[in-house]
Amino acid sequence: MPRSPIPDAIAQFLAEPNPAVIATKRPDGSPHCVPTWYDWLDGEVLLNMDRSRKRLRYLRRDHRVALTVMDSTDWYSHIALIAEVTEIRDDPDLADIDRLALRYNGRPYYNRKRDSVTALVRPTEWATWGARFSGS
Amino acid sequence: MPRSPIPDAIAQFLAEPNPAVIATKRPDGSPHCVPTWYDWLDGEVLLNMDRSRKRLRYLRRDHRVALTVMDSTDWYSHIALIAEVTEIRDDPDLADIDRLALRYNGRPYYNRKRDSVTALVRPTEWATWGARFSGS
Repeated sequence: MPRSPIPDAIAQFLAEPNPAVIATKRPDGSPHCVPTWYDWLDGEVLLNMDRSRKRLRYLRRDHRVALTVMDSTDWYSHIALIAEVTEIRDDPDLADIDRLALRYNGRPYYNRKRDSVTALVRPTEWATWGARFSGS
Repeated sequence: MPRSPIPDAIAQFLAEPNPAVIATKRPDGSPHCVPTWYDWLDGEVLLNMDRSRKRLRYLRRDHRVALTVMDSTDWYSHIALIAEVTEIRDDPDLADIDRLALRYNGRPYYNRKRDSVTALVRPTEWATWGARFSGS
């Protein structure tokens, strides 16, 4: 897989509110994956979770993650990222989850009592697949 | 997460040609994930890869995988499966990849020279999320 930095065409794709799935590693070493909202912050991926989510524990234990970001109208066209968590921080005023909810749903996050935690993730490798990226 | 067997409502969802992502473990222990076609064979998930795909090596090395299957019109509604590879076999007449191509694209697989390999995967745990499954 090519190494970072991310080319402009791929950064533009990541800037769209596309469907995404994050893979983490469970304590027993097996993989885990779930859909996730994300945003692209000029070189880093912004993620947010409720503090109760298992994947927050997995991310704290092992900083290595994988992300698949799919074209919203052609899900087999995708970017696969290998990445590392660079920061995990509380989101007490819900600024980060609101940013994601506005991006995907057009309105602030519905649960104003969410115990909100943000993770920043930096891609180290990337690959593209599918019609959207043919020629890239 | 609940243990298998898979309830009927979830089996019905898995029987639809929904977008899916498979997570595997790379040799260095980090997670990897990519979109995948799949079919649901009454208790097992059928997957198929070209023999050159890295994830085939990962699957042979560690049989534990995770699958996220998303609603095609509401990707945040999803089923997360923890699963194990039960069989890896050649697909010399392309029967399995044709089954998947027909399911997703309505026509046989375009590349009749594909070096096609099938994996069967049995879910051990599952979880649902999102509007489609509220009340399930």
